[in-house]
Amino acid sequence: MAGGKIDWQRRVAAEALGSFFLFAGVIGSGVMGEQLAAGNVAVALLANTIATGAILYVLIAALGPVSGAHFNPAVTLAFALRREIGWRLAAGYVAVQVAAGALGAWAVHLMFDLPILQFSTKARTGIGQWSGELVATFGLVFTILALLRVRPAAIPAAVGLYITSAYWFTSSTSFANPAISVVRSLSNTFAGIAPGDVPGFVVAQLAGAVLAVIVAGWLYPSTDEPDRGA
Amino acid sequence: MAGGKIDWQRRVAAEALGSFFLFAGVIGSGVMGEQLAAGNVAVALLANTIATGAILYVLIAALGPVSGAHFNPAVTLAFALRREIGWRLAAGYVAVQVAAGALGAWAVHLMFDLPILQFSTKARTGIGQWSGELVATFGLVFTILALLRVRPAAIPAAVGLYITSAYWFTSSTSFANPAISVVRSLSNTFAGIAPGDVPGFVVAQLAGAVLAVIVAGWLYPSTDEPDRGA
Amino acid sequence: MAGGKIDWQRRVAAEALGSFFLFAGVIGSGVMGEQLAAGNVAVALLANTIATGAILYVLIAALGPVSGAHFNPAVTLAFALRREIGWRLAAGYVAVQVAAGALGAWAVHLMFDLPILQFSTKARTGIGQWSGELVATFGLVFTILALLRVRPAAIPAAVGLYITSAYWFTSSTSFANPAISVVRSLSNTFAGIAPGDVPGFVVAQLAGAVLAVIVAGWLYPSTDEPDRGA
Amino acid sequence: MAGGKIDWQRRVAAEALGSFFLFAGVIGSGVMGEQLAAGNVAVALLANTIATGAILYVLIAALGPVSGAHFNPAVTLAFALRREIGWRLAAGYVAVQVAAGALGAWAVHLMFDLPILQFSTKARTGIGQWSGELVATFGLVFTILALLRVRPAAIPAAVGLYITSAYWFTSSTSFANPAISVVRSLSNTFAGIAPGDVPGFVVAQLAGAVLAVIVAGWLYPSTDEPDRGA
Repeated sequence: MAGGKIDWQRRVAAEALGSFFLFAGVIGSGVMGEQLAAGNVAVALLANTIATGAILYVLIAALGPVSGAHFNPAVTLAFALRREIGWRLAAGYVAVQVAAGALGAWAVHLMFDLPILQFSTKARTGIGQWSGELVATFGLVFTILALLRVRPAAIPAAVGLYITSAYWFTSSTSFANPAISVVRSLSNTFAGIAPGDVPGFVVAQLAGAVLAVIVAGWLYPSTDEPDRGA
Repeated sequence: MAGGKIDWQRRVAAEALGSFFLFAGVIGSGVMGEQLAAGNVAVALLANTIATGAILYVLIAALGPVSGAHFNPAVTLAFALRREIGWRLAAGYVAVQVAAGALGAWAVHLMFDLPILQFSTKARTGIGQWSGELVATFGLVFTILALLRVRPAAIPAAVGLYITSAYWFTSSTSFANPAISVVRSLSNTFAGIAPGDVPGFVVAQLAGAVLAVIVAGWLYPSTDEPDRGA
Repeated sequence: MAGGKIDWQRRVAAEALGSFFLFAGVIGSGVMGEQLAAGNVAVALLANTIATGAILYVLIAALGPVSGAHFNPAVTLAFALRREIGWRLAAGYVAVQVAAGALGAWAVHLMFDLPILQFSTKARTGIGQWSGELVATFGLVFTILALLRVRPAAIPAAVGLYITSAYWFTSSTSFANPAISVVRSLSNTFAGIAPGDVPGFVVAQLAGAVLAVIVAGWLYPSTDEPDRGA
Repeated sequence: MAGGKIDWQRRVAAEALGSFFLFAGVIGSGVMGEQLAAGNVAVALLANTIATGAILYVLIAALGPVSGAHFNPAVTLAFALRREIGWRLAAGYVAVQVAAGALGAWAVHLMFDLPILQFSTKARTGIGQWSGELVATFGLVFTILALLRVRPAAIPAAVGLYITSAYWFTSSTSFANPAISVVRSLSNTFAGIAPGDVPGFVVAQLAGAVLAVIVAGWLYPSTDEPDRGA
């Protein structure tokens, strides 16, 4: 989405800022939801869902024109495969997505008076969970690639609403993002995932992203794309 | 909505992909909602509602320009009656709506570690339920036909929000879609319907759709329609 | 909003159709919410809120270009005071708002297997409730008049979101509509109001509407209004 | 956002009207949520969140073209630092934000039959809360400044959704506004804050706002801004 005229420092900084707020939004709203929901996990997840969908809209609308607003290595991989971002810059994106995202998790721990450094013990594994992540990430990347072609201005709303829905219809609550999978292992709270279960999630996510690149590439042939940036 | 220049393979594939995700979204969020809501059915239905409305926006925005984003035989029938889609292509649409939608239901069962093949035992029948489906489908098809004339860009949001509302104000929670009625009979979960109750729903839905074609045809006379495709 | 070229039959029919669905939406979602919420009134009102806000967006987007999408005598009064609708047509609007709205309430009773004819016994009276209706209706009419001047395309979303909010921040849950006040007295359900309490609500609502006409008339002086119809 | 041609009386009146409704919305929905939520604080906060996000959209869309729709001394400070509003008018804005906001709180007490004059006893203090306010206000002001540059028409939705999210991911539920911090100390209800804890909140908020001015100033260099008003 971002024009080639923006220097790489600003692009990487935008990825860092967005990942910080996105990951803080996901993890922080999980903490707040669980603390207040009096044991009704559906209410906690509803709060988590609404907060996540809402912050996605804001961050993509604000930072999309600077960096493309990936905040997600699966998305960065998709754009790299489509040669819409160079591999070198892509690597920088992924590095700050994880690093700034981890700062976001730690900021949540600071805000909620929790130990800064911690690891999740929540098991998330098995065929059901992995197929959930494959479906979730396929849908996310497909949504982005499709709308970039037919209605780019709707991407902030569409990504926010896609995740809003996918939190509920996938068994894994739709992490759909390798960086957030890593960072959520650093928080033993509602949104956490045991570190040992992260690799399974990441493999399923990357497979979903590659599949989406293939399907979207066929369904939306590239003759007159309205936007090519990022 | 889709231009005549898009080949039928892509149009049918878009219907299939959209029906897969829509039906997975409806059924999957029902499973998740019921599992987490600790017996508060309103909270489960709220989650089901939000997930369904959100995915409708995404799928219609992304796939509307390819296939028209029907995902629903009642909608396809309405466009066929208005001669905006040929009967042959319409039949293909309906076939993949049911088939790919069933795959969506089964994908949910896989993701949530449930038996893949199952049938619902949930009774949904009687005058109250049928009048609910008639009202619900009339409103859905009317919304689409009206906005196609006065504000086509608002269709993704309007359809998502219409269903969001109709889940609550109709006694039947607004299936409003013969294909999803069939597919929901294949899932003995929150969103299910006993197979024997499907025909009553389908008749009411098709009646509502035909009524909407008549009323919308009178209320929005076709002189200067901004969009005629699909 | 509607152009003068649309014949009065279609305009009145659009008011009727919209009032039917709006009032069915408000009352029906109240019934469903209360039935499912297991005694948590906040959850029931949340469902009622979301369903009402969502259907308002849909109906105003679809029917606004035909009739102006008032569905509310307080709004019709405001436009009549501003001479943007004739008093004769205004009277017709108000008549069908009440009549078709009552049909909406009775359709809900049919759908939910309740006695068709009934009267509410829910007391809603006193200074707190009346000041709630005054604030609520002032805000609603002001929102419409302001946006008609500065951003007409945002009216469907703004009205839906205004009511979404006002359901919660006014003590009376923001009826803000004399026709719906009358019709809600015909339903002894969640959204009901005892018939004897309706006049107090209507007086407060009309006072709020007149006040909004005055304030909006001063704050947005009429030099270059983008839209004058309805 | 507002053009320089609008006289200061209307601008200040718009700030007053918006602050009245915003603060009434925040406090009133907190009262209603707590009264109805049967002890489930997450449900109460969810209602509070939705009502606040929704009214923000409405007020910014309606009043932004008149006054810029600050309703918040931290936002007014940011625009004053960027020399987009004079210090004299800025002082007037802040004065009416507090004064009209207090009227909003008292209107809520009137509507809900509570004593008009009261003070909150709810403790909100400590490093966790202050860091919450710093993060929350940084994000709010950054969102506004960024979107003013890249997508001004999205500001009403983005601010509403930012606060929707920040209510949940910050430990302090994101007051993010010195005027509302003062006014919420005047209401011993769900949204209240003990008067003695207000200064800590205000300092953190102003620090967040200044930081956002610096970061946004670097990330969005001012060459071709689409909007310079307010």
